Amino acid sequence: MNIMDVIKARRSIRKYQELPVEREKIMECLEAARLAPSACNAQPWKYIVVDDKNLKDRLAKEAFSGIYIVSRFAAKAPVLLAVVSDPDWLPKAGGAIRKTDFHLIDIGISGEHLVLKATELELGTCWIGWFDEPKAKRALKIASPKKIEVMLALGYPDENSSFNHHERKPLEQMSCFNGWEDS
Amino acid sequence: MNIMDVIKARRSIRKYQELPVEREKIMECLEAARLAPSACNAQPWKYIVVDDKNLKDRLAKEAFSGIYIVSRFAAKAPVLLAVVSDPDWLPKAGGAIRKTDFHLIDIGISGEHLVLKATELELGTCWIGWFDEPKAKRALKIASPKKIEVMLALGYPDENSSFNHHERKPLEQMSCFNGWEDS
Repeated sequence: MNIMDVIKARRSIRKYQELPVEREKIMECLEAARLAPSACNAQPWKYIVVDDKNLKDRLAKEAFSGIYIVSRFAAKAPVLLAVVSDPDWLPKAGGAIRKTDFHLIDIGISGEHLVLKATELELGTCWIGWFDEPKAKRALKIASPKKIEVMLALGYPDENSSFNHHERKPLEQMSCFNGWEDS
Repeated sequence: MNIMDVIKARRSIRKYQELPVEREKIMECLEAARLAPSACNAQPWKYIVVDDKNLKDRLAKEAFSGIYIVSRFAAKAPVLLAVVSDPDWLPKAGGAIRKTDFHLIDIGISGEHLVLKATELELGTCWIGWFDEPKAKRALKIASPKKIEVMLALGYPDENSSFNHHERKPLEQMSCFNGWEDS
């Protein structure tokens, strides 16, 4: 599969088979994430992979309850990943001057490497931003200054699931040439 | 090329040939960015492509001067892209509760689609976070509430350029299984 095949095949998967994900496939996904570029090469991410069923169930129960119940679908994924930020002082200082948190852009870059590699392996993924972070952190025994920025669900897609097909803005709306154009 | 080939071939390119980049290749890169997932499908990005030499030179002069001079290498790239954020109210509200700016993660995801597609097309790229944002915005006539979060350089790599080979943390340092482990 070339890049566009993979990009087009990727879907945010919200129904998974019960099948566990092979550890070696998880490692391949992490390897893709590992090689990502980042501001000052700080690699400001740590991936906590949760594939132990008991822990995963506990994590899901804590993370996806109350106002976060809409993310409960992810409890059925055989693997959850918590992406913890670990920003370095130099890009943090630069980001403070520029008023852009570079480590979040970096986590997007690295996490999408993982997502695209997973897609090539016929695994489904879903980025999850909506979860109870303090409770998720406690379930994973992460000390307080650390922060889970985002989570990812991973597993074999349920082939019977219908996809939410999300429309994208047309090219002329999401881009312009040689100066700003309103769209 | 499969995903890992592309991921491994990608380098942050800091020397470019003078050769212009074909518009159709730029469009292919934008198409890859366009299809990226984002929180609530908000697609909170707008890509301003600058491939007009005069404007690009003016932009580079403004954006990469003073304390931002270290990014001046990008002035030689035939194309600069300014990625302007355009956050939607729903993920913005969710992000405020979760204390994570989802639109920055989304821009990382989308921009890296562009970068990987460019790599497959044998184009070089470099993410640039360090630039004079207010001056860059003026050069591109972007009105004030909008913000350029990050820029990208794009062009054919100078084959004589030496690569900065950046080491990455080993897998066991950037990941752990079933609970937090210090590394």
